[in-house]
Amino acid sequence: MPESTTCPTVTDVANALDALRSSTPLVQSLTNVVSANFVTNVLLAAGASNAHIDNVHEAAGFASIASGVLVNLGTPDDGTAAAFTLAAEAARAAGTPWVLDPVGVGGLPWRTELAAGLLTLEPTAIRGNASEIIALAGLGSFARGVDSASDSEAAVPAAVALLEFAHVVSASGPVDYIVGRSEAGPVGVKVGGSSPLLTKVTATGCSLAALVAAYLSVSPTPLIGITSAHAHVAVASERAAEKSYGPGTFAVAYLDALASVTPDDMRSALVEPLTL
Amino acid sequence: MPESTTCPTVTDVANALDALRSSTPLVQSLTNVVSANFVTNVLLAAGASNAHIDNVHEAAGFASIASGVLVNLGTPDDGTAAAFTLAAEAARAAGTPWVLDPVGVGGLPWRTELAAGLLTLEPTAIRGNASEIIALAGLGSFARGVDSASDSEAAVPAAVALLEFAHVVSASGPVDYIVGRSEAGPVGVKVGGSSPLLTKVTATGCSLAALVAAYLSVSPTPLIGITSAHAHVAVASERAAEKSYGPGTFAVAYLDALASVTPDDMRSALVEPLTL
Amino acid sequence: MPESTTCPTVTDVANALDALRSSTPLVQSLTNVVSANFVTNVLLAAGASNAHIDNVHEAAGFASIASGVLVNLGTPDDGTAAAFTLAAEAARAAGTPWVLDPVGVGGLPWRTELAAGLLTLEPTAIRGNASEIIALAGLGSFARGVDSASDSEAAVPAAVALLEFAHVVSASGPVDYIVGRSEAGPVGVKVGGSSPLLTKVTATGCSLAALVAAYLSVSPTPLIGITSAHAHVAVASERAAEKSYGPGTFAVAYLDALASVTPDDMRSALVEPLTL
Repeated sequence: MPESTTCPTVTDVANALDALRSSTPLVQSLTNVVSANFVTNVLLAAGASNAHIDNVHEAAGFASIASGVLVNLGTPDDGTAAAFTLAAEAARAAGTPWVLDPVGVGGLPWRTELAAGLLTLEPTAIRGNASEIIALAGLGSFARGVDSASDSEAAVPAAVALLEFAHVVSASGPVDYIVGRSEAGPVGVKVGGSSPLLTKVTATGCSLAALVAAYLSVSPTPLIGITSAHAHVAVASERAAEKSYGPGTFAVAYLDALASVTPDDMRSALVEPLTL
Repeated sequence: MPESTTCPTVTDVANALDALRSSTPLVQSLTNVVSANFVTNVLLAAGASNAHIDNVHEAAGFASIASGVLVNLGTPDDGTAAAFTLAAEAARAAGTPWVLDPVGVGGLPWRTELAAGLLTLEPTAIRGNASEIIALAGLGSFARGVDSASDSEAAVPAAVALLEFAHVVSASGPVDYIVGRSEAGPVGVKVGGSSPLLTKVTATGCSLAALVAAYLSVSPTPLIGITSAHAHVAVASERAAEKSYGPGTFAVAYLDALASVTPDDMRSALVEPLTL
Repeated sequence: MPESTTCPTVTDVANALDALRSSTPLVQSLTNVVSANFVTNVLLAAGASNAHIDNVHEAAGFASIASGVLVNLGTPDDGTAAAFTLAAEAARAAGTPWVLDPVGVGGLPWRTELAAGLLTLEPTAIRGNASEIIALAGLGSFARGVDSASDSEAAVPAAVALLEFAHVVSASGPVDYIVGRSEAGPVGVKVGGSSPLLTKVTATGCSLAALVAAYLSVSPTPLIGITSAHAHVAVASERAAEKSYGPGTFAVAYLDALASVTPDDMRSALVEPLTL
């Protein structure tokens, strides 16, 4: 797959949604128990499908036939941690795009070591909040003092450093910062416009990472894929916020909006180049 | 329990809902992490209750006191897989109705073998989509080329073959196809009228299987029990679709509708004989 | 932490919500797979945050830095059961408040023994339904014949007996009964006004226990903390019921209401002294 050398356009993200809807990619999610239901409903609403296959007997086999794979470190145990590695290895071997969501990395030593091992299996994309991206790049040494909720821009140098392992890396926040490899050096993208209510509903980040896996499988470049997932979330969350009275109604309206957003609606996404 | 020799009537399913509401059966669910919350909420809304007991220390003991047991193969690991067998054995020994939902069987060898072992423990009912029912009957050999979303009628011969193991078998789809044993040979039922939005919300199939377990425990025959569960879902989903703007609002309205459907409303269910 | 010697007032619970919102305590939840998503969404809506850390490698370390810890016995397996003990030990050693929610204790021998071990680690608070509180106090011998849904007052003697292990104990029901230690002997509180729809949505009890953990970490006494959690749930559930058409819409409106209830609204809570 070629790399993007410039920031994706709103036409690129509109086309990506069109491709998603017409091919209904099947994501294999290895995700935490808090997010498992919401991740699947987000994928179904957006236009993809999902199979949560995270046991050691089946994780590798399924990764070789899935359209994309999500590995989320939210609630690992010994069994699922082993399955993460098996799925990532199989995805890499099969050329299946896979996404690493390094939940909690930095503050928790066991999973930080697990994440370090997964990095060497070359995820196609990494999606986290700012503190997780910084911790993953430094494997813990840069994490202190960063407020993940407020300053995703602070994670850009760490995201660029992680391009050693991954094709594209994003740090979510009020504005999402995304970087990708190209032969001309790192390319940067900002995606704005998402609703702050996303932070009041659990698993919105986890399901965004799952959506990245879905979009990677239908997009011409990894940077278009990850940018399209972020843009879909931003546009849908803004629409949902208008119909919400709090986090409960927001989560429901968000699923409706993920389904009702059209490729043409994606043209309103706030996608801008980021100077690195 | 005697077997139905004819297709259940809408009076049968109306009476079954009445019995469900008046006895509030307690289902033991051994189900996947994606569906665990929704399965419980569906059972509570419909008029039953649920306990998710799936560890090896307690699964068998509880199966002997539950009203019905659901074994769902969605996200097994070594521990829950062992608990499935223990619960199924205890349910059979105690005469507790139990339901097998063979999620993913056919495409995934490990759970397909697990399902083959569970079949020998004689589930009261099997509920799956078309490709799962076909795979379960052939243990993998018939699964290719079947689109589970579109053609549940294609699973009827497989469902009939599975009556060797189970009293009743259903294949879900736009129309649900159900077959049951009788001394006069297999009896068939079609249940129509369900909303296509059911396919846009995860765990609607899993929770239908849980509802089958609940209804089996209050119905005069297994065929009336399974048909009543399918009819309850069809009637409630149609009502919910009228109040929905997408998959998010549908899932919420569906829980409301499962609770608000009355025995009299069940008389509008599209239950018809199926010629075998 | 000093103990309350009198029943908390509505001013106490109003101040506690204010403290919760201004400090956003981080709960560590070790809870069951049915409730994991809802527990987190309830904490986020109410004004706290959550991390579901329940593996043996990380449970203890995180308990020493969390604001409060929830140990819920809903769906234990060998791994999470070991993590429960590790987290409780670490919380006790660090002086972190921790809450025991003894789901299913009494009817299920394995977890009843597990609960007995956890009791010796001195939970700050215990929250259960009446039959669970009675079973926990008697370790099984008093459980028979008690209907947990209808008679939480019957659990008061058991709750008082459990003050040997915990600072505060509550039994949930149509009216919640709460008792706490003081130098002058046990103090009692009743909290009324909650909606019966809480019993039609799974994990409302589990998430109340999580909210107790959050409130304990910001309240001047354990009795004010646990009473404030019960009062927040009662006020929010009553408000949600007014906007509901069934259990689906209720659950959604409940999350909205948990977020929209103000400290001033908490003054309408039905908090009364309970004579012991």
